[in-house]
Amino acid sequence: MPQPVRISLDAMGGDHGPSVVIPGAALAVERHPDVRFLIFGNEQVLAQILNGYPKLKEASEIRHTEIAIGMDEKPSQAIRMGRGRSSMWKCVQAVRDGEADAAVSAGNTGALMATAKICLKTMAHIERPAIAAMWPTLRGESIVLDVGATIGADAGHLVDMAIMGAAMARIVFDLDRPTVGLLNVGTEEIKGIETVKEAGRILRESNLPHLEYKGFVEGDDLGKGTVDVVVTEGFTGNIALKTAEGTAKQIGEYLRAAMSRTLMAKIGYLFAKQAFNALKDKMDPRKVNGGVFLGLEGVVVKSHGGTDALGFASAIDVAYDMAHFELMKTIRGMLEHDPVEQQA
Amino acid sequence: MPQPVRISLDAMGGDHGPSVVIPGAALAVERHPDVRFLIFGNEQVLAQILNGYPKLKEASEIRHTEIAIGMDEKPSQAIRMGRGRSSMWKCVQAVRDGEADAAVSAGNTGALMATAKICLKTMAHIERPAIAAMWPTLRGESIVLDVGATIGADAGHLVDMAIMGAAMARIVFDLDRPTVGLLNVGTEEIKGIETVKEAGRILRESNLPHLEYKGFVEGDDLGKGTVDVVVTEGFTGNIALKTAEGTAKQIGEYLRAAMSRTLMAKIGYLFAKQAFNALKDKMDPRKVNGGVFLGLEGVVVKSHGGTDALGFASAIDVAYDMAHFELMKTIRGMLEHDPVEQQA
Repeated sequence: MPQPVRISLDAMGGDHGPSVVIPGAALAVERHPDVRFLIFGNEQVLAQILNGYPKLKEASEIRHTEIAIGMDEKPSQAIRMGRGRSSMWKCVQAVRDGEADAAVSAGNTGALMATAKICLKTMAHIERPAIAAMWPTLRGESIVLDVGATIGADAGHLVDMAIMGAAMARIVFDLDRPTVGLLNVGTEEIKGIETVKEAGRILRESNLPHLEYKGFVEGDDLGKGTVDVVVTEGFTGNIALKTAEGTAKQIGEYLRAAMSRTLMAKIGYLFAKQAFNALKDKMDPRKVNGGVFLGLEGVVVKSHGGTDALGFASAIDVAYDMAHFELMKTIRGMLEHDPVEQQA
Repeated sequence: MPQPVRISLDAMGGDHGPSVVIPGAALAVERHPDVRFLIFGNEQVLAQILNGYPKLKEASEIRHTEIAIGMDEKPSQAIRMGRGRSSMWKCVQAVRDGEADAAVSAGNTGALMATAKICLKTMAHIERPAIAAMWPTLRGESIVLDVGATIGADAGHLVDMAIMGAAMARIVFDLDRPTVGLLNVGTEEIKGIETVKEAGRILRESNLPHLEYKGFVEGDDLGKGTVDVVVTEGFTGNIALKTAEGTAKQIGEYLRAAMSRTLMAKIGYLFAKQAFNALKDKMDPRKVNGGVFLGLEGVVVKSHGGTDALGFASAIDVAYDMAHFELMKTIRGMLEHDPVEQQA
């Protein structure tokens, strides 16, 4: 019998805490019968909600914690308050201690990243971690990183991200040699930031066995799905991600307004309702919830803070895949070919 | 009788040259009967096309040029080849020499910016120019800059852009005190890049009479239209712009696919056709064509290279407004309150 996939949950994270985390975990148990949860948070609250989900209850162990990290807590404050005892810290610590294969939290990004960095440590040879997001495209999905772990990146960090993103793509898309592009303001070699050009040169010249470097890509290549992995530093990545989310919402609003303006449009809407629902479903941001922290000695997945049970279940799906298909092992294997390391 | 608005056109710029520029100008003459054109390019070609547009012909003067700058010409090459004689250079020079109130070119951005910088010069006290784009939002439109003139920005440059963007907003939106936000990765004061924080501090403390500084905004605020003017450095701005354009196209594709998948959807589409057309019209990128170069001693407007006559006419509209409502004078007036200058 195969080993279960063990996931630790920070039940107190996010805007809604256990009232979203527990129903989300219940959905995940339906999808993955081999999943086991370690749930950190207020024991009394958790036990009560869990009573409503007998199947999940059977697959879960509750660990009581006293401290919950607020959504607007500064990272330094989160560490000071939470070290060794917050639900967030204990959730990540379970991965460090080998009790869980992956951790999921909807807590605030800065606090979670600080906790993960201190508790798990950054991987050997990796300068700093990154957050990778799944990006829906016209071709399916791409992986985009960094969407906000750190600001700024030198060429070496961009190359590391290319390798880690490709490792994730290998798992998620089941590809031997995922394509990778560097986000830039023009596809010509002469354009853009020096560090991006330098990273491009290293990736091109090192011709890595496990990723195919495709050169520069631009903002509109994200939606096209031109490459499997798009690499950029965290400031730009975060703004690109939020700009795309904002644009999608904006067009959704336009569409809603257009379809309710005239009687003919309303009739048309009724006929095409199923098609609209399929479209809505396709654009549902809850389905691509789950940012993967890459570059740490363990798998941590960040859920949107404001998501619902369906969204939290998506983040658990991501953690499940990363654990099940051994993201850490894949990254370690691919980092053996790291050209930045070899140069050092 | 009021003075006509005089606009110089680079007829050889863009992917399609005169075959788009001339019909575009013809549309603009219909909209603005007081416009006069100085058209630079191949005289023979231009004269022939102009014969088809008698009204435009009457409002135009052709100036022959031998050199056309290609769309993939490097800026340095464009200057070497074109200085004093390309259609692009002469078009900008007409503004410098007081023969035109604004210049419009669909030529390549790098070449046009280099030409404008050398020929027109940067304004006194302005470190470097920026490109401002109109951004459709749920509230109407915002101005976003820099969308790609230069990479990187220090705090002073960001403050300059805030002032220049607000000057443009004053004209375009007819507002006394437009709201301004700095693009960042979080709205909390603790977050983001040092230069952005520093610019925020300067803008907040100087409490300028002609703009209302609203603090940091995030990527999704662009589509919401949270502020009238969004300021960021050129790399991020360019990627945000192209990401939004890409996302809009992507959702358009989804919608098209959804509406043609089933018979019911097709019927619905027929009923709602007018609403869909209105939506398509609203999302038409040709309507917001025209990036304004700010910070130069004269008005230069950059049209998308691949646009058609309708799109080029939009770029002329922008130039017309900037000239008619005296952008240069407004910027100069507002720069008198420049806190960066006063600190220096």
